[in-house]
Amino acid sequence: MSEPLGPGPHTRVRRLPEKALYDAATVFDIVDAALMCHVAATVDGLAMALPTLHARVGTTIYLHGSKSNALFRAVLDAGVASLSVTIYDGLRLARSAFESSIAYRSVVIVGATREVTDPEEKHRALGAVLEAALPGRSREVRAMSQREENLTLVVALSIDEASAKVSAGPTTDEPDDAALPIWSGTVPARVVYDEPVASTDGAMAEGEVPLADSVRRLRERT
Amino acid sequence: MSEPLGPGPHTRVRRLPEKALYDAATVFDIVDAALMCHVAATVDGLAMALPTLHARVGTTIYLHGSKSNALFRAVLDAGVASLSVTIYDGLRLARSAFESSIAYRSVVIVGATREVTDPEEKHRALGAVLEAALPGRSREVRAMSQREENLTLVVALSIDEASAKVSAGPTTDEPDDAALPIWSGTVPARVVYDEPVASTDGAMAEGEVPLADSVRRLRERT
Repeated sequence: MSEPLGPGPHTRVRRLPEKALYDAATVFDIVDAALMCHVAATVDGLAMALPTLHARVGTTIYLHGSKSNALFRAVLDAGVASLSVTIYDGLRLARSAFESSIAYRSVVIVGATREVTDPEEKHRALGAVLEAALPGRSREVRAMSQREENLTLVVALSIDEASAKVSAGPTTDEPDDAALPIWSGTVPARVVYDEPVASTDGAMAEGEVPLADSVRRLRERT
Repeated sequence: MSEPLGPGPHTRVRRLPEKALYDAATVFDIVDAALMCHVAATVDGLAMALPTLHARVGTTIYLHGSKSNALFRAVLDAGVASLSVTIYDGLRLARSAFESSIAYRSVVIVGATREVTDPEEKHRALGAVLEAALPGRSREVRAMSQREENLTLVVALSIDEASAKVSAGPTTDEPDDAALPIWSGTVPARVVYDEPVASTDGAMAEGEVPLADSVRRLRERT
């Protein structure tokens, strides 16, 4: 049994509450499965959302970017931010446009933000972001230099409130519509990875560097 | 030759300006190719971003939702909003974590918002949103009723400012790194559609409703 996470005042799902789920396991599964997120902040007086990579470690989300990233600076100045994660799962096609929708899993998180300055936490957070993008890759790459870590801004967002929405399964048509000779159903969608394109510079030019295990596993999962 | 769209004060790409593109054709192609967008607004004092479907008609983006959608209400109250579109294109793997990134196409749009109340524009906008999600589907579904149109909120966002960022192609390693025996390259990603799952109610239960042409074409493109 997964502990409840919320919702709080910002994350209560007002619309379609029957789709709303708040338990931590559901929220975490969606966050972990998502390739990217959108972080929202007020920049120059306007609410903006920008895409970025993320990693979850327990109840903390780590984000990384340039030290000059205006959105991340706004997120840190505000001390609180919201983050949205959305996974597109396909089409849910009813006989009417009104009852048609898409299949998706989405999460909105709201929490306190802080810059990660502790060198050890920062190092772990950067490794976690790379692992989230491609499991196993952090053990393959050249170790990060102190200069590179210094150039990178790491933001921690505490998962203080969260809500999930899951839209899946068959659509519900009005009884009169179900009798119409219109095809109805769902069309599942997923992300696949195609043939890797190897770099041609340096040691790769010799053709003697084997495909990374991380990429091989990613392709096998496709 | 595509006309320039901006950037304006909100959409100038400050970071990695070499990736920034502002011409209308680039912006429109990304917006049209994206399955969903995230709309940002300030709700209860906090910048939030929520996923939604969208359609572009000329220099207008149409969004639709429930009349009680708090984020759309905030977008209309503010009279201006920003919208982000992000397409995940895969992994760009350098020999170092620092030079690794993802391949993506993204757009940020900022513009004036208004509720679409003209019945003809609203009808066209709703058709456009369905067509954007699945080309051809608007000609297959049962026509929308007046009641359904009345229940639906349609928001128009004028593309007043826009910027695009495109991250693609091989990564650039530091010269010392290129000599390392670490696999480097890109792994392209794309969305595919799997076998449709037909509804089993109403006329579909008889098994005599052929697969919709829109879905067949979608699957052929996969």
